[in-house]
Amino acid sequence: MDAKKVPDIIIGRLPVYLRTLRHLKEQGAHTTSSLELSRLVDVSAAQIRKDLSQFGEFGKQGTGYNIAFLIEKLLEILNIERVWDVALIGAGDVGHALAHYQGFVNSGFRISMIFDNDPVKIKQQIGLLSVQDASRMVEVIRSAGIKIAMLTVPASAAQEVTDKLVEAGITAILNYSPISLNVPQGVQIQNIDPAVGLQRMTYYLV
Amino acid sequence: MDAKKVPDIIIGRLPVYLRTLRHLKEQGAHTTSSLELSRLVDVSAAQIRKDLSQFGEFGKQGTGYNIAFLIEKLLEILNIERVWDVALIGAGDVGHALAHYQGFVNSGFRISMIFDNDPVKIKQQIGLLSVQDASRMVEVIRSAGIKIAMLTVPASAAQEVTDKLVEAGITAILNYSPISLNVPQGVQIQNIDPAVGLQRMTYYLV
Repeated sequence: MDAKKVPDIIIGRLPVYLRTLRHLKEQGAHTTSSLELSRLVDVSAAQIRKDLSQFGEFGKQGTGYNIAFLIEKLLEILNIERVWDVALIGAGDVGHALAHYQGFVNSGFRISMIFDNDPVKIKQQIGLLSVQDASRMVEVIRSAGIKIAMLTVPASAAQEVTDKLVEAGITAILNYSPISLNVPQGVQIQNIDPAVGLQRMTYYLV
Repeated sequence: MDAKKVPDIIIGRLPVYLRTLRHLKEQGAHTTSSLELSRLVDVSAAQIRKDLSQFGEFGKQGTGYNIAFLIEKLLEILNIERVWDVALIGAGDVGHALAHYQGFVNSGFRISMIFDNDPVKIKQQIGLLSVQDASRMVEVIRSAGIKIAMLTVPASAAQEVTDKLVEAGITAILNYSPISLNVPQGVQIQNIDPAVGLQRMTYYLV
């Protein structure tokens, strides 16, 4: 089976399953069922079983899923058995929030450099990191071999900065700027836009 | 046709189309095509045509979509012809970032109250708003008739605060806490978790 052919919509649910399994493990649970997971993640039990079955046989009829084993398999499938270094671009409010975000702990990511083009922010200390001059971004990211960036610059600058990130060898961008970015094939984008999240819900509000 | 039966995955793409159409309009464009949109939003042209056709006939073969008309229809479909008041819970880094976020302008939302339980933060001014005591949250939200909340409290407090939001009459929550929330049927949740966004991309990184 070519695992890379699994629909992206399924891949998008795996991190949520992982987060939930870890939560159950922290609470002392050893096994779980698609039914229990279903109640915790708002995906049907049948869908969860189908999603996981794309990658092998993880559960047993009657006894359910071994939580530690399933966590291990999901880490492996999602390529986060390792820790990925991430470049954070933009040291404004969102940048600060991400730099202090506790949710990255054990998630497979570590912000290892922060860039901004504002002279006031350059050399500022955020946590353990010092904000670096964005004019050196391409060079520094490339020589560190970093593949993942989080983009928190204003919309007006976002495409220009993205072009530089691609030049620097970045192949995955978590985009907080409220515009859709153009990138060459092979570069992935995930957009985080609170307005989009809210608008998706108002559809259902009467 | 019962519009409410449109699959949620399609609803989730409409705000992205809307954002892109507005971007085109700002740049002075009057018409667009599913092909042009496709390049801008990374959804196939056929899928875009199929998504929009769920709601009526918006484009003409050969002449494409009238941008102003399509924007108007999408605002109507998504229930954002009006401006929704939003309660922001948590005045930490993420709360500040959201309070200052420019992407809400014209998106259909206005943060109209901010709550925190930290005595140091209560009465602090964030933009035009003063942080209110979370102990009065249920009462204040309910009497204002607010239906939408953005939740930026620590994971350990998120479920407890969510229960109170539901009690206050909130029916849509944009959740920034890195846990899955339990809510009664009829209450919607959209989760914004950067770790989930990143993990979805590392699947494809070799």
